[in-house]
Amino acid sequence: MGIRIDGQRLRRDLEELGRIGRDERGGVSRPSFSPADLEARAWLRSKIEGAGLCYRQDGAGNQFGRLECVPRTVMAGSHIDTVPNGGMFDGAAGVLAALEAARRIVEEKVPLRKAIEVASFTDEEGNLVGDFLGSRAFLGLLDEKEVRGGRTSFGLPFAEVLEATEFTADTILAAHRSRPDLEAYLELHIEQGPVLEEEGVPIGVVERIAGKHYRQCAFIGEPGHAGTTPLELRRDAFLGLADFALRATQLVATRHYGSVITVGKAALHPGSFSVIPGRADFTLEFRSASPEALAAIEKDVFGLAEDIASTRGLRFVSKVVDRTAPVAVAPRLVGLLEEECRSLGYGSMRMASGAGHDAQVLAGACEAGMIFVPSPDGVSHSPGERVDWDALEKGANLLLRALIRMGSNL
Amino acid sequence: MGIRIDGQRLRRDLEELGRIGRDERGGVSRPSFSPADLEARAWLRSKIEGAGLCYRQDGAGNQFGRLECVPRTVMAGSHIDTVPNGGMFDGAAGVLAALEAARRIVEEKVPLRKAIEVASFTDEEGNLVGDFLGSRAFLGLLDEKEVRGGRTSFGLPFAEVLEATEFTADTILAAHRSRPDLEAYLELHIEQGPVLEEEGVPIGVVERIAGKHYRQCAFIGEPGHAGTTPLELRRDAFLGLADFALRATQLVATRHYGSVITVGKAALHPGSFSVIPGRADFTLEFRSASPEALAAIEKDVFGLAEDIASTRGLRFVSKVVDRTAPVAVAPRLVGLLEEECRSLGYGSMRMASGAGHDAQVLAGACEAGMIFVPSPDGVSHSPGERVDWDALEKGANLLLRALIRMGSNL
Repeated sequence: MGIRIDGQRLRRDLEELGRIGRDERGGVSRPSFSPADLEARAWLRSKIEGAGLCYRQDGAGNQFGRLECVPRTVMAGSHIDTVPNGGMFDGAAGVLAALEAARRIVEEKVPLRKAIEVASFTDEEGNLVGDFLGSRAFLGLLDEKEVRGGRTSFGLPFAEVLEATEFTADTILAAHRSRPDLEAYLELHIEQGPVLEEEGVPIGVVERIAGKHYRQCAFIGEPGHAGTTPLELRRDAFLGLADFALRATQLVATRHYGSVITVGKAALHPGSFSVIPGRADFTLEFRSASPEALAAIEKDVFGLAEDIASTRGLRFVSKVVDRTAPVAVAPRLVGLLEEECRSLGYGSMRMASGAGHDAQVLAGACEAGMIFVPSPDGVSHSPGERVDWDALEKGANLLLRALIRMGSNL
Repeated sequence: MGIRIDGQRLRRDLEELGRIGRDERGGVSRPSFSPADLEARAWLRSKIEGAGLCYRQDGAGNQFGRLECVPRTVMAGSHIDTVPNGGMFDGAAGVLAALEAARRIVEEKVPLRKAIEVASFTDEEGNLVGDFLGSRAFLGLLDEKEVRGGRTSFGLPFAEVLEATEFTADTILAAHRSRPDLEAYLELHIEQGPVLEEEGVPIGVVERIAGKHYRQCAFIGEPGHAGTTPLELRRDAFLGLADFALRATQLVATRHYGSVITVGKAALHPGSFSVIPGRADFTLEFRSASPEALAAIEKDVFGLAEDIASTRGLRFVSKVVDRTAPVAVAPRLVGLLEEECRSLGYGSMRMASGAGHDAQVLAGACEAGMIFVPSPDGVSHSPGERVDWDALEKGANLLLRALIRMGSNL
């Protein structure tokens, strides 16, 4: 079967969508429910309808395009929202590759035994109330308190943001009731890391999605005059953080190869040239595809923080901001994607996803699999985000073949 | 001679002045030329005049109270401006102790051969255009460009701040022309460190004032997705800073005992949970009372920064923000203050000042000396700044005796 996606059409779609929410710094700023996102949603709806798919939207704003056959559904998709000043491929590539695949199935009148549904999930980037609002709503996994009382990452009450949309806390919490009878979910996504490019392989078949642990942390010491307090009498909160960051990174690098740990943000208080920091606030995140490693890192790293605090006369405090467990991709889908790669003559490698994706949420309801395509220079979440068009076309062809094969089985 | 200052009156003065500019966080916010500072200036003028001293103000806003006798002048003072949310003793203690001493000389009609002048210098804290605006104006050491084109630490053009005052760039630059024929300058100040309290000694006789070196620095690496970039492929700017801060502190502590180094402020970019810091901006300051140590620290520390940058695949950049040389106090004044301590029965110890003071500027024009009184818990530049009233009274008595002795000599 020689069916292929139309690479030029996919590229035109991505470029068209990439102009919606284009910001003055050359990136795409399209957080969910922003005016740009609402414009992108209308654009996607017209594309879904133009492809001859049946359009629907659920109460959480998740958008779907269905090729109706029978109740059992094979779904493919991702998201079209972006981080502020993000790029034009993170999420969009997966939605539009799924749309292009469905379009080819319609055009070629490929006979299927199952429904194919293209999905675009609301707020994968977590600008509203935590990551994966749309896919968690789709599965009925949202916490009612979070939906009714949450604040967005821009500091607004979520309820206020909802007022500008057609959705309410009630429609969001009820969205999962319209979920079809899902059999499998496939998501194509840019890798967001440098591995495929370094290895020179166009396709990554995701085996596991890393779990992550986010904490807001602080070392607390004693501020003091930087000119008059001898080094040996200081309780410098920043030196505690510096010591911790180095040793925690070393610990993960040596004991948990493949896992990662990052201090991404730090603020020293009071924060001036001549005052010893009395408090160092920082974000800490660590990720691992292995549940055992994730638990061990948590134990080791926070034990280390307590040790450093006690050695240096500081206090360590922290608050969990978010945590997700590692998710294993359905082995059947890993095998199926690898077989299709071989039949298409595409090189592929198995890998773990360090980033989180809607697929990890969907994995709670059905078999879920992911296809990665290379991110040149590993860049994502920035205006410099790019894609290797040839590899993207390969990835979309793989998605098309996998959907046909999964939709053909009884 | 049993003359003593009136400790109750000095305390009442300090408490009265400490209420001007009191902020909602319980500190004193009285930066130079703020409305609170203008109110404090009017208050000080009335106190100087009330003491029977001849009041004058120069073109830089420095305020003086003169006990006229002959052209040669012995001056004592400090400053009444504060850092934002500072305390009520840093600076104010020295001005009001000098005022109280002059008042007692007037009241007791102590016959002197020299003029005694009380001084309050503008903007010692450096909120306008660099530290020591007033005393540098007094000595004619200001850079014209800095005065005409500078910006304040609150981000306003200095020229705009001046519009609300009776001063102009021209009056400031001409202030030094009205300087009297100075013979010596004495400054009482809170220690701002923990040493006198730890040693249980009420009086510190300052031998040297530390020089300092301020730089705005950055390590520059490569931002990246914190979930998808393996630890070994990162160029994390924050880990460069952490490594540098620990090793630079260790280096100063072991090779230059008594000197200090501080990272007081840091900002990571882009600054979020899940992005590897591509840039870490930070302030670095180091101080030493020894010119040799200061030069050695500069060489060692920036060499270390370059080493760390090259090992970690980063770039290191820095810009000098300020630097002052260490200043030696006139040995004659050290001896004189120690003799007067013995005659008053007060314990004293020699020490270096880690903080900068107007005295180090005045040392360029005359003999300059400093008296330190303990800072409970070493706290300064904060609402928690306190003073041991008994030690302050001792310090003011020492200042009174020294002024009489210096004013009596031919």
